[in-house]
Amino acid sequence: METQTDLKSVNNKTAQKKEESRAYEMATKQRDISVAEFFSRNKHLLGFDNKRKALLTTIKEAVDNSLDACEEARILPEISIQAIDMGNDRFRIIVEDNGPGIVKAQIPKIFAKLLYGSKFFKLSQSRGQQGIGISASVMYGQLTTGRAARITSKIEPDDPAHYYELMIDTEKNKPKIVKESIVEWEKDHGTKVEIDIEASYLKGGQSVDEYLKQTAITNPHVTIFYTSPKAEQFIFARAKDELPKQTTDIKPHPYGVELGRMIKMLQVTEARTLQSFLTTEFSRVGSGTAKQICENAALLPNTKPKDLSTEMAEKLIKGIKETKIIAPPTDCISPIGNELLEKGLRKEINAEFYISVTRQPSVYSGNPFIIEVGLAYGGNQPGDKPANLLRFANRVPLLYQQSACAMLRSVTSTSWRSYGLQQSNSSIPIGPLTILIHIASVWVPFTSESKEAIAHYPEIIKEIKLALQDAGRKLGSYVNKKKRVGFELKKRGYIEKYIPHVGDSLKNIVGLAEEDRKKVEEMLKEILEQQRGKLESMEFDEEKNQDYEQELAISRKDSEEGDLDD
Amino acid sequence: METQTDLKSVNNKTAQKKEESRAYEMATKQRDISVAEFFSRNKHLLGFDNKRKALLTTIKEAVDNSLDACEEARILPEISIQAIDMGNDRFRIIVEDNGPGIVKAQIPKIFAKLLYGSKFFKLSQSRGQQGIGISASVMYGQLTTGRAARITSKIEPDDPAHYYELMIDTEKNKPKIVKESIVEWEKDHGTKVEIDIEASYLKGGQSVDEYLKQTAITNPHVTIFYTSPKAEQFIFARAKDELPKQTTDIKPHPYGVELGRMIKMLQVTEARTLQSFLTTEFSRVGSGTAKQICENAALLPNTKPKDLSTEMAEKLIKGIKETKIIAPPTDCISPIGNELLEKGLRKEINAEFYISVTRQPSVYSGNPFIIEVGLAYGGNQPGDKPANLLRFANRVPLLYQQSACAMLRSVTSTSWRSYGLQQSNSSIPIGPLTILIHIASVWVPFTSESKEAIAHYPEIIKEIKLALQDAGRKLGSYVNKKKRVGFELKKRGYIEKYIPHVGDSLKNIVGLAEEDRKKVEEMLKEILEQQRGKLESMEFDEEKNQDYEQELAISRKDSEEGDLDD
Repeated sequence: METQTDLKSVNNKTAQKKEESRAYEMATKQRDISVAEFFSRNKHLLGFDNKRKALLTTIKEAVDNSLDACEEARILPEISIQAIDMGNDRFRIIVEDNGPGIVKAQIPKIFAKLLYGSKFFKLSQSRGQQGIGISASVMYGQLTTGRAARITSKIEPDDPAHYYELMIDTEKNKPKIVKESIVEWEKDHGTKVEIDIEASYLKGGQSVDEYLKQTAITNPHVTIFYTSPKAEQFIFARAKDELPKQTTDIKPHPYGVELGRMIKMLQVTEARTLQSFLTTEFSRVGSGTAKQICENAALLPNTKPKDLSTEMAEKLIKGIKETKIIAPPTDCISPIGNELLEKGLRKEINAEFYISVTRQPSVYSGNPFIIEVGLAYGGNQPGDKPANLLRFANRVPLLYQQSACAMLRSVTSTSWRSYGLQQSNSSIPIGPLTILIHIASVWVPFTSESKEAIAHYPEIIKEIKLALQDAGRKLGSYVNKKKRVGFELKKRGYIEKYIPHVGDSLKNIVGLAEEDRKKVEEMLKEILEQQRGKLESMEFDEEKNQDYEQELAISRKDSEEGDLDD
Repeated sequence: METQTDLKSVNNKTAQKKEESRAYEMATKQRDISVAEFFSRNKHLLGFDNKRKALLTTIKEAVDNSLDACEEARILPEISIQAIDMGNDRFRIIVEDNGPGIVKAQIPKIFAKLLYGSKFFKLSQSRGQQGIGISASVMYGQLTTGRAARITSKIEPDDPAHYYELMIDTEKNKPKIVKESIVEWEKDHGTKVEIDIEASYLKGGQSVDEYLKQTAITNPHVTIFYTSPKAEQFIFARAKDELPKQTTDIKPHPYGVELGRMIKMLQVTEARTLQSFLTTEFSRVGSGTAKQICENAALLPNTKPKDLSTEMAEKLIKGIKETKIIAPPTDCISPIGNELLEKGLRKEINAEFYISVTRQPSVYSGNPFIIEVGLAYGGNQPGDKPANLLRFANRVPLLYQQSACAMLRSVTSTSWRSYGLQQSNSSIPIGPLTILIHIASVWVPFTSESKEAIAHYPEIIKEIKLALQDAGRKLGSYVNKKKRVGFELKKRGYIEKYIPHVGDSLKNIVGLAEEDRKKVEEMLKEILEQQRGKLESMEFDEEKNQDYEQELAISRKDSEEGDLDD
């Protein structure tokens, strides 16, 4: 009895003590945070920092989705965008496409659930990759205007269209269906998204107008109809009746797979031996390479994958690192291509010299990527301002967070002085120049969910710099040629100026008749024109490049000194 | 019968057609993305961009949690950190605290589930706020080394300690318990975290060493024992035996609540009238203010909250905007304070002039925040390099992404030339200067989950600039005074140099005896010393500030011209 009482009192005491413990008190407050709650508090991570950006982000997410869907279904995209100013910072955004449409059951989740989608799980190039964007826009609309998003989608000409009014239950990150119905829609197939948001509209560098203009540069296969909040109509007509090359999903490349992921892959694979695991689950591993990996890892090729311990998986990773494996396949990436890139630049930028460079594919963390660079020089671009930098990722223009972007770092760490431009240390070069940079990859490493800047992966920065240097050398050569031509023309100008005097003098000295004088003058001019013609058709000469740059450096120095006098 | 067959065939046809539709094919690939999968692919969003940063991030997340827990439980923190280099880029991180410990049931979720915690839901100042950090470190360790994290925690001296080995099931974002047991631990209470990660160790500006040094500056109540990967021992001893003021949770301020959140609050409140809803669910709304809001919103104060339509909620928001409501309470924020800030700077930076400024609380998006600024000038800091910028948020040093941070923007958009420093347009000023900026808030708006930079909220940038200007004026005044003193001393120096000659001359002219000459010289020196003493004890004179700055501008111009000659 006594013992029992004692025990009881001890228990009571413990219970009481535990009640008093701060740890217990703190435990009562701990709970799950839904990803929707998280992002509704962190709207700026999704590109909703301010009203102006909110307008751009909402349209961008809808357009990204439309373009991805059209391209995946091999449909030439036709997209109509309306941004209607309803007063009091309220805007109605309507984006309609001719895409494949979305099956009924998927509509609520795609538009009203964060982290839901198809693109996250495959390694292939697409604009969306996170399953966040459009649902984030719906959530932002709901937070700021209290209104549900309206979605209409149709997948077949004979089928009816499905209409939904959707909100997000942020506590659960689940769709809340406010209304659903079947509606008539004259379209064969497509999707229409209508969201009311709090926003503001301003023209200029980071505007919706600019975003669509730049989208047209890198997506010449797209037709865009745009009605701005000022009710202006813009049509960006398709420049090319052909879709970009269809990209295929790839398997991961062995070099990019970390230990933790390898262990998981070993557990879930259906392969029965390590050898077949390596050849079936990875790209670029044939049976020879697989044997080599096993040998380097000191593992038997016929080991069952599930039997590999953590230590053995570590050996496997080490073995992979010691084996030479060719770079990942690149049919998963669809660059814009030199020709189209230059064409796009010519269409939008009034310059006198255009050059574009597409690099060979490269790899960061096992993800293949391609860098493309275009330069447009001269024309009516201001010569005394920093160059204009246009950034693109998987054909999507990036308008914000330039200072956080690996592309800026690559530009500022390139030496532009040797290409005939001014540059104070580690800043954007000064001159009449537009620099376009595009990264195409199966997985673009953005610095935040709002997908505005590229993270500073050394492999990416290196590739961009190499592309800039390649294009820059050609630019430098042009700038130098231009200076030489200018110099030659100046010389010819002097001679032309003196031809009449030469004629006169000859007339006096040799006693030419007036007719002969004219004849001599014309002959002289003819010779002159021939020489000048040769000069103007002078082709870029790779071998002389070095010399050009040296001369260039000298003439630049001259002209700078000249500038001081001005 | 016929009709039936027809229907069947139509159904079949439809089914077939649907099978063929791209929309159906695409739908099969869509699925949920777990937040752990999302972040394991986007490690750089969590601060795991590279091996060096991974070391810092892992330690930082563990230390943040320890400090938060200690302060919440009102325990003076004592934290021991070991980073052991195990070769081959493997590091073992061990962080042990004397905090309140964690109750058994919560340990797995706190360390092995992303988006889980207590800090997200309350509005009060803490280092962690997202429920991501430490689980992200565990996940990173698992991905790179395949090892489980080891956690030991104890909440009472008489209780046993609980030991867990934990991994994250990334597909489900759930803890996977590898091992659990009860162990003996001599500590009264506390938590020990042990994680193996792939990392690298480098000293310098963004190192763990620097992070801990800066942590000591802004957390003088903390004792840190640190063993570096080079097996060096550091002790940052507590400078103050007192915890920071205990902060309280606050209710949201009406100005920061968006429509969507208002609608949700109206739905879940237990208040029976709009009037009582306003006074109980918000801070700074008494019955008078509540009545005023209702009047401005043209709503009846006795309306049932649940009966408010979206349109009425909109009116309510409008009514709030039209009502003058005092700023949120600030007992939820714990600034470091002028005195401790200056003390911290003095301890770590060898300078000759220190100044610190704590602003009055301000509000962004309904969240109260306070800006503090400290400047340390001169001493052995290099005079020809950009100033050293130290950034802190809720007492945590921010070492990465300076270029993306609102603090940098505030520094570069402040005009430092008027405070006696060199500055080319929109860059960090040049001079022997350290600038410390601290934001304390119930919710710090970071630009990414890795919490390295502050988002560009205009209210925050403005407050930082005002603090910098306030401190800058005092600095300018000092710099000017220093120049004046220098000038005076130079004059005195000249006179002193000539005193013997004056003595000699007097001796010759007046016919002084050698003893008298010495006497006269000593008297002259004495007068001189008195004058100099006055000069050196010259206090900062607020009213003369304007004049000082003008003189300063002139003398700076002089010294710059002087520099050209050097």
